[in-house]
Amino acid sequence: MNHGQRILLGLGLGLIATIASAGGRVAPAPNGIELPAGYKDWRVISVAHRTDNNTMRVILGNDAAIAAARRNQTNPWPDGAILGKLVWKATTLQSWDKATVPGEFVHAEFMLKDKTKYAATGGWGYARWKGLKQEPYGKDAGFAAECVACHTPVKGQDWVFTRPAVLP
Amino acid sequence: MNHGQRILLGLGLGLIATIASAGGRVAPAPNGIELPAGYKDWRVISVAHRTDNNTMRVILGNDAAIAAARRNQTNPWPDGAILGKLVWKATTLQSWDKATVPGEFVHAEFMLKDKTKYAATGGWGYARWKGLKQEPYGKDAGFAAECVACHTPVKGQDWVFTRPAVLP
Repeated sequence: MNHGQRILLGLGLGLIATIASAGGRVAPAPNGIELPAGYKDWRVISVAHRTDNNTMRVILGNDAAIAAARRNQTNPWPDGAILGKLVWKATTLQSWDKATVPGEFVHAEFMLKDKTKYAATGGWGYARWKGLKQEPYGKDAGFAAECVACHTPVKGQDWVFTRPAVLP
Repeated sequence: MNHGQRILLGLGLGLIATIASAGGRVAPAPNGIELPAGYKDWRVISVAHRTDNNTMRVILGNDAAIAAARRNQTNPWPDGAILGKLVWKATTLQSWDKATVPGEFVHAEFMLKDKTKYAATGGWGYARWKGLKQEPYGKDAGFAAECVACHTPVKGQDWVFTRPAVLP
């Protein structure tokens, strides 16, 4: 490759990177699951403060999950339900140090219920995107074995730790 | 009042109570603020764990509040913005005791921004409904003085403690 070709290659790669970045497309998880569209607009199922790793969480649901939660039909959750968990490092509010609140964004993670499609992982598809750059978690499709292992204690409640918060 | 009249009065009062209960109407706060419609479907602004009284909270916003939070235009918040806070006693997840999660529902409380209408209380209307029965908080309209007193340390950030959680 001569100097001119290298410059052209460099410009081409730069252009591709720019287009990819401008498009804002998030890469799918290694098991093929795509980042669920519009998840930041989903409604709340519950919240949590994990004291072992000091993170704050909100658990959201797509329409199917919210409907199931409000009817109290979550064991099993229906096919089509998606649970999304947004996770931040915990910090304290500058104006009131008795409030533990979200600090740095850690990741968004999801469980997608489809007892047929995801039969190999307990009827749920798992996926996680790390940080503000939303990089997919896991080196290959096998990463979901980690998820299943951690969720096994709650196999009896359809593999889901979260219980929908009580509302009026 | 004779015996027959008393029976009729009793039946009448019973009927009124039944209708009120079936209608599910929530009484307004003593300052006239009505429970905002559809607040359980609002989107998330942040979450919090208050360690002084061990409660878990999710802070929701109506469309105007969400738009302002996502544009980072929250000092001041725009007129029309409503912040809703759902509060539960904290408990630990039965399946994983390192997760502090919502237990008993405590109350839903709201701040409604209108710098003209609520000028007497810093441009915000305050209201709270207690428990699953959603009983209005406060004996008379003066209750909001308590709210303003507690929020005074954050007067410089438009009287709001919550900072919108960072999202990708």
